[in-house]
Amino acid sequence: MGGDHGPPVVVGGVKDYLKRHDGAGVCFLLHGDEAALRDELARAGLPEGVCEIRHTDKIVAMDEKPAQAMRRGKGSSLWNAIEAVKAGEAAAVVSAGNTGALMAISKLILRMSAHGLERPAIVASWPTMRGVTAVLDVGANIESDAEQLVEFAIMGEAFHQAVHGVERPTIGLLNVGSEDMKGHEEVREAARILREGGFGLDYRGFVEGDDIARGTVDVVVTDGFTGNIALKTAEGVARFISALMRDALTSGLLAKAGALLALPALRRMRQKIDPAAVNGGPLLGLNGIVVKSHGGADARGFGNAIRIAVELARSDYLTKVGDNLKRLTAVLDQPAAPGDGAAMETSK
Amino acid sequence: MGGDHGPPVVVGGVKDYLKRHDGAGVCFLLHGDEAALRDELARAGLPEGVCEIRHTDKIVAMDEKPAQAMRRGKGSSLWNAIEAVKAGEAAAVVSAGNTGALMAISKLILRMSAHGLERPAIVASWPTMRGVTAVLDVGANIESDAEQLVEFAIMGEAFHQAVHGVERPTIGLLNVGSEDMKGHEEVREAARILREGGFGLDYRGFVEGDDIARGTVDVVVTDGFTGNIALKTAEGVARFISALMRDALTSGLLAKAGALLALPALRRMRQKIDPAAVNGGPLLGLNGIVVKSHGGADARGFGNAIRIAVELARSDYLTKVGDNLKRLTAVLDQPAAPGDGAAMETSK
Repeated sequence: MGGDHGPPVVVGGVKDYLKRHDGAGVCFLLHGDEAALRDELARAGLPEGVCEIRHTDKIVAMDEKPAQAMRRGKGSSLWNAIEAVKAGEAAAVVSAGNTGALMAISKLILRMSAHGLERPAIVASWPTMRGVTAVLDVGANIESDAEQLVEFAIMGEAFHQAVHGVERPTIGLLNVGSEDMKGHEEVREAARILREGGFGLDYRGFVEGDDIARGTVDVVVTDGFTGNIALKTAEGVARFISALMRDALTSGLLAKAGALLALPALRRMRQKIDPAAVNGGPLLGLNGIVVKSHGGADARGFGNAIRIAVELARSDYLTKVGDNLKRLTAVLDQPAAPGDGAAMETSK
Repeated sequence: MGGDHGPPVVVGGVKDYLKRHDGAGVCFLLHGDEAALRDELARAGLPEGVCEIRHTDKIVAMDEKPAQAMRRGKGSSLWNAIEAVKAGEAAAVVSAGNTGALMAISKLILRMSAHGLERPAIVASWPTMRGVTAVLDVGANIESDAEQLVEFAIMGEAFHQAVHGVERPTIGLLNVGSEDMKGHEEVREAARILREGGFGLDYRGFVEGDDIARGTVDVVVTDGFTGNIALKTAEGVARFISALMRDALTSGLLAKAGALLALPALRRMRQKIDPAAVNGGPLLGLNGIVVKSHGGADARGFGNAIRIAVELARSDYLTKVGDNLKRLTAVLDQPAAPGDGAAMETSK
């Protein structure tokens, strides 16, 4: 029921997913208003047995505060969808609904698997010169200490492997320079743990802001404050340049004629930075798979969020993350080597 | 002598500045190798008396560490140029040299005027849908407390007024959401001081990453870590989209023909995001005007950095910032109102 468009985009997304991807063995539990969902299913002409409706007439509104949604959300479509994961009925949940509520209720029902995380980390799939880079956290954890940054690295690596099919993803820590002495204490301490922790990650050191679009590494790790601002800044710049380009190519007869000739090439270019092709941000760090679709996504975008959820569910993502987080706890429990004391104490 | 190109770009920049802008009464002291500078001046054919050469054969290398540059930099072209400002011989210094050294030596010679600043803040002029937005700090101060963020707001406002000619610039604090409760303690405390401090600033509240390119406010205030990452991320995205566009418009005969027709419009578009037109980042918070040109800038870019320095020197920028910083100190020295104690203590 969530998102700006509700059932049409959710059911349309299921249809799109089945058309474009390998949906063998995938079934959908649709939580929400039975009549509305039944109408949409009839319109979509989906094969029998692929979708099952779980009726509820309670919904969490898009503008509801997380605390309120937690108090009065029980029995809502959002709540029931997450409950189904907890109960083992569903392997993953996909929602275009209220992000704060999805996060709070997921945490309440599924609980965090990562020990230091206050709330799930959100990962963004970022189109780059070399494909797609995973950037996390992009908005959930405002202040992240060294341990959390390492957790993001572990979860981001497993995510990228499962969803983008890269055998051994490379990892970088976002910083203001590539030298060891740069940046604040948390990021330098995280670098030390990643170098010495023996997690088997392909850690490549610090990367800078322009390395994201360059695709220097597969996974870029940062705190939720910086990550959210970097992501939104990038979206703003992309929109600004698109607007300039549109203006330029409609600014006169010659320009319009030129644009017409170049149209197929410009369309192919657009596909490379198509938001629908990268829609779907998993909430990492939970005991279960939860994928957030953009509220304004269309059916194709929602279909891509489903694809991400299915690929995570089919992979050994949860086991792998669990094992690596255990290894992190072991590393952190070790007594610090002489001389490390000061660094450990000053890291928050 | 600094930058990737040395004297040709510096002298070329002087020439470009005099050609494009009102250089009435502006004279230049060129610090560096007399022979090299004399050659360039002859080649440029600049009018007599506009430039005076101050010879030194000592230079600070582009890759020298700031601490080393401070120890052995005395008598170098960089050092002498800053000394000339301190001595009142020059109204401002412009350099394309080693950023860290420029910052360290400026601080040593000119000293900070802002009380809480550890080093100068760098301001970036960012092209937006509505003109130019000033973003600061973009790289010098890794961790910024509430007081420093307010200092950035005060300095950014005076800078924008002096250089971009906006009577009463609007100011926003960069955050992950626009609600009062969002973000970390430092940014919320800075918001409170800006709202209640009575500095006469047109403070508009929190802005998000995508508000920068949208031009929602004239001055965007953030800590140096986030600001540096936002700026470099944006540069990366802009380069990525430009590369995609170039690829698209050279991908076949039709596309090439289209690009040719649209060329004048595309060129006009390029001007709007031309790095040379926004080159020149002042180091704010010093008792004197210091402007950093990009090391790779061309003559036109260096000319723009000169323009920024001249406009700051012609304005009452330094007085205005000084007055407002005094007002800030007065506000911070006031005993906190009941109930504010906890917030003041937790802010670093």
